[in-house]
Amino acid sequence: MKSSFSDYSAEIEKYLRDMTYPSGDLEGLYGPVAYGMTAGGKRLRPSLLMMAADAFGGCCEAALCPAAGMEMFHNFTLLHDDVMDNSDTRRGRPAVHARWDVNTAILSGDTMLTLATRMVSEVPDTILRPVLDAFNTMALRVYEGQRLDMDFEKSDSVSIDDYIRMISFKTGALLAASARIGALIGGASAEDAEKMAEYGMMLGIAFQIQDDWLDVFGDAASFGKPIGGDINNGKKSYLLLMGLSAGTPGSEALAEAMKLPAGPVKVKTVTRIYEKMNLSGICREAVARYSAGAISALKATSLSDSDREPFRRLVEKLTGRRR
Amino acid sequence: MKSSFSDYSAEIEKYLRDMTYPSGDLEGLYGPVAYGMTAGGKRLRPSLLMMAADAFGGCCEAALCPAAGMEMFHNFTLLHDDVMDNSDTRRGRPAVHARWDVNTAILSGDTMLTLATRMVSEVPDTILRPVLDAFNTMALRVYEGQRLDMDFEKSDSVSIDDYIRMISFKTGALLAASARIGALIGGASAEDAEKMAEYGMMLGIAFQIQDDWLDVFGDAASFGKPIGGDINNGKKSYLLLMGLSAGTPGSEALAEAMKLPAGPVKVKTVTRIYEKMNLSGICREAVARYSAGAISALKATSLSDSDREPFRRLVEKLTGRRR
Repeated sequence: MKSSFSDYSAEIEKYLRDMTYPSGDLEGLYGPVAYGMTAGGKRLRPSLLMMAADAFGGCCEAALCPAAGMEMFHNFTLLHDDVMDNSDTRRGRPAVHARWDVNTAILSGDTMLTLATRMVSEVPDTILRPVLDAFNTMALRVYEGQRLDMDFEKSDSVSIDDYIRMISFKTGALLAASARIGALIGGASAEDAEKMAEYGMMLGIAFQIQDDWLDVFGDAASFGKPIGGDINNGKKSYLLLMGLSAGTPGSEALAEAMKLPAGPVKVKTVTRIYEKMNLSGICREAVARYSAGAISALKATSLSDSDREPFRRLVEKLTGRRR
Repeated sequence: MKSSFSDYSAEIEKYLRDMTYPSGDLEGLYGPVAYGMTAGGKRLRPSLLMMAADAFGGCCEAALCPAAGMEMFHNFTLLHDDVMDNSDTRRGRPAVHARWDVNTAILSGDTMLTLATRMVSEVPDTILRPVLDAFNTMALRVYEGQRLDMDFEKSDSVSIDDYIRMISFKTGALLAASARIGALIGGASAEDAEKMAEYGMMLGIAFQIQDDWLDVFGDAASFGKPIGGDINNGKKSYLLLMGLSAGTPGSEALAEAMKLPAGPVKVKTVTRIYEKMNLSGICREAVARYSAGAISALKATSLSDSDREPFRRLVEKLTGRRR
């Protein structure tokens, strides 16, 4: 039977809570792993994997361990990204490198990557090869995306195409692989698995652009991080890149405003320019476009209308969120 | 036909030299990978894998990619270990984090781990599961060993058993997995693969104790790193731990000498105490004991005497080295 996203999410949450790790003198290695895995969050990636397995195969139990593996991979990237971005807080708690130290974050992160590979490989032998290939290919894409993201910080010539490629690597690839691996576990054909991966990719791109929008126009009380963080950090977000490349007088004003010192004045000034240039609307349109792409990919699968329903609702849920 | 260690090593060296990596705007991610992989070295792990594949199957070509994957894994650990140990030089060149930066070493290291997993998985589907299991289990052991090694630095109660367990994780596990995976690729039975893993484990322990010995008694001109580094860094080596736990007047003198400031006087004083306590001899005996363990494991396999010969010679080569 087909459930909703939040049912899968709750099931994953329970599975993750019940996981045990080696302790004793290995506590120093696995303690930070457990800490990272119990920080909560939407559990988007494993839930999507479960949903896809269920849609194609109607069996969910078998997908739990690989699904948790995708969450483990995601959390591994957070551990290492937080070190690289020098970001001390994660979901309202100290990041691993802040709570312990950088060496611990590096080594426990490595451990999470291998644990993730092992958990995702807990599938029948008949699909081990395609699942493992999908996982490793995805992982390389994610590192490539992180590298590009870091390089963009120092570059003055990042185009919208560059940006879309970067987020398709850094965010899209993991959602694509989650949907693909779930479909494979459910017994989907190669064609259906491919279409589901496309669904995940489009969803991931829409999700990231939405995230950029929320960073400026989100509900401050519920977004979970300070509004305007991207503006203050000079991050090459979808809004900033679209604004700078518009070639209108607003573009010049925006470039000037981005030179202001970080603080509420900068956030307010840039936000006002974004509004004048209708970048909020342009952003919403892009989210709608990629969401539509996700829905078309979904329609191209052999799934019935009712089996597609939870995936359609997931798109709505993620792109309609205010936080 | 069975060749010698140096033939395999040369073949691997050529394979690694011919490997290509994505370039263009991904140069920042893969350039440091290529740099790490072309630093030379003995190529011990992949050569052992090739040797085992050849001994059991007589086919070597198919083992090249997985063998190179083991070297990739080894080099990944060096990248991250050098960051954790704050060690700026590796094989006479700047370490990746010194030549580029810490973030690059972290991210390109992650990339190497995934590349390694992918390369080691390039085996027939029939043995993919056991090969992957051996690889992932080994990887976790290596992280556990590195964690213990870091924890030992701050501990005053490290026993010889702790030390042996640590090096069996940090060094032994990778040689054991190399021998095991090579044997599996060659078509060895589960029993033979197990015995080969034991051979690799014993060889790895002997190799590491030998390394500790060389750090004090090696040939300064050819060892490749300054003699006495372990003494100056207060590293809990086999010699130091054996000396401290002897419970003789020498133990007290040794504990005192270890408090001296780093420098040639400390190295000379500690070395003289080691000599007085016959720790060089005790160390040589331990190397001989683990070498004998490697040979017994080898003899317990179904290999013919002539097929065992290269493995026997490898033990001699590694434990007889002066650098």
